[in-house]
Amino acid sequence: MALRRVLNVSVAQMGPVARSESRHKVVNRMIKLMEEAHQQGSSFVVFPELALTTFFPRWDYDDNDELESWFEVNMPNAYTNRLFECAVQLGCGFYLGYAELEEDSLGRKQFFNTSILVDTKGCIIGKYRKIHLPGTDEPVTGASHQHLEKKYFDVGNLGFPAFNFQGGVFGMCICNDRRWPEVWRVLGLQGVEVVALGYNTPMENRYGLSKLTDLSMFHNHLCMQAGAYQNGTWVLAAAKAGVEEGIHHIGGSCIISPTGEIVGICKSEDDEVITAECDLSEGDKIRETIFNFENHRQIKYYGSITSQTGALKPNN
Amino acid sequence: MALRRVLNVSVAQMGPVARSESRHKVVNRMIKLMEEAHQQGSSFVVFPELALTTFFPRWDYDDNDELESWFEVNMPNAYTNRLFECAVQLGCGFYLGYAELEEDSLGRKQFFNTSILVDTKGCIIGKYRKIHLPGTDEPVTGASHQHLEKKYFDVGNLGFPAFNFQGGVFGMCICNDRRWPEVWRVLGLQGVEVVALGYNTPMENRYGLSKLTDLSMFHNHLCMQAGAYQNGTWVLAAAKAGVEEGIHHIGGSCIISPTGEIVGICKSEDDEVITAECDLSEGDKIRETIFNFENHRQIKYYGSITSQTGALKPNN
Repeated sequence: MALRRVLNVSVAQMGPVARSESRHKVVNRMIKLMEEAHQQGSSFVVFPELALTTFFPRWDYDDNDELESWFEVNMPNAYTNRLFECAVQLGCGFYLGYAELEEDSLGRKQFFNTSILVDTKGCIIGKYRKIHLPGTDEPVTGASHQHLEKKYFDVGNLGFPAFNFQGGVFGMCICNDRRWPEVWRVLGLQGVEVVALGYNTPMENRYGLSKLTDLSMFHNHLCMQAGAYQNGTWVLAAAKAGVEEGIHHIGGSCIISPTGEIVGICKSEDDEVITAECDLSEGDKIRETIFNFENHRQIKYYGSITSQTGALKPNN
Repeated sequence: MALRRVLNVSVAQMGPVARSESRHKVVNRMIKLMEEAHQQGSSFVVFPELALTTFFPRWDYDDNDELESWFEVNMPNAYTNRLFECAVQLGCGFYLGYAELEEDSLGRKQFFNTSILVDTKGCIIGKYRKIHLPGTDEPVTGASHQHLEKKYFDVGNLGFPAFNFQGGVFGMCICNDRRWPEVWRVLGLQGVEVVALGYNTPMENRYGLSKLTDLSMFHNHLCMQAGAYQNGTWVLAAAKAGVEEGIHHIGGSCIISPTGEIVGICKSEDDEVITAECDLSEGDKIRETIFNFENHRQIKYYGSITSQTGALKPNN
């Protein structure tokens, strides 16, 4: 039996989520978006990073209980159950980003910026925990806003797994991961045909680099388009967009083909669904010719990529 | 004494070089281009890949002497001496791509697609030998043209060295290398501030992927812009352009800033010089913040990049 190799897939961009907005209300919005995706014929929809709440790492918390209130201990849970049920009813799998609190049998807690892949039976078939945490582990004095992901999250401990899903090979990453070519390559080396990702990207550069601020949308797309082309994969990228608690986040949620072309893009900075027909085999020719890794990669000369973290200037 | 950190740099695109065109004539063209670069205030100019001859790997040769006639045994030599002298006279260093034949003391020959970095004293201070050889090691039946780099060249054996040059850190690569993020990262891990490269890129995709043909200029720039931004480096890229022996090569030679923006681009498909003022420190902020490798890279999860050449699909 031939596998189904053409999928309709959707990206569900979300507008701002207020600090006071309940998970119940947010899930209502997500169900509406999933229904739209379904109406557009989709069997898979990508939601943003940390989709269930406001982007909470922008604040410093004195109160640990308040901090932990942003995290999910179980998934699905009382709030997200309806989303999983909806996936079954509509036959629409999804990617969901959320903050995950894991407690082991000794009561030790770990905190991850997590995404999951959920199938049309409502089963979690894949999990990823964000590895490239941006920002700082302490508040920055004088910054227009904080970005404390390095304080609140542990570095993901699952690597970059790929999954057989809906007849193709799916990978995941989250937000800042998309800027790192290493992420795309580790996924590409597993033959991914679709990479799903969510992001929350403030428009304003916190380091006062006004020029980089102007370029935030360009950089967003540049990294994903290069990752798509250089690994012959579809990219489905969902932003949480718009002005959230006074901070303007870029939108530009998009669907990128294995040629690196943007084939669908959100026009708003609000809740919005875009859909594309996605031939999972479209990247084959790229992976068999110009980016045939087996034929062309020369790993003997890539050593420093895995042996060395920071840059070392030449001595000559 | 503060190092000079702002340079005027040029890219010297070249139009077609006919199979019958002598090296003497080609060097005349290159001297004219170097003079133009000098008039534009430059202290460094980048010439294309295999600049001294036509792009000879497009043919299959019965005659080994004919094949070897495209290679340089010594550098500089009788043909290129004048270019080196000109560099001294004008105070203009250069990057030159050429085919290099190296014979060891036992008479064993090796063949490389090579580039060199030449300073304003006319000294070769750096050499690179192309590592990502495109094309095939045997002629392809029915192809519109051949691309036999894998037949005629050995894989470069010098890695991706970086050099202290003109007050900055310079790296080199050649043509197809620019499509591989590994190349940019290995150079980035040496703190490169400028990457010089030459290319010969046929517009027509040999694999009959007409869609990729339309996208050849997009892919050319996409890979270089991503490499520039993700490593905070300037890129100086020189094409051999136009219709050469019936094959149309893309132009689009350009100067890319560390933000990934194209700040100068050739308009023609012929001999043409573009120049930009290049602040070698412009990438510092990028390398100190969003792409601070020491802070953000997680090499523990990059293992397959260096342990595995080809792609392996997941078993789950």
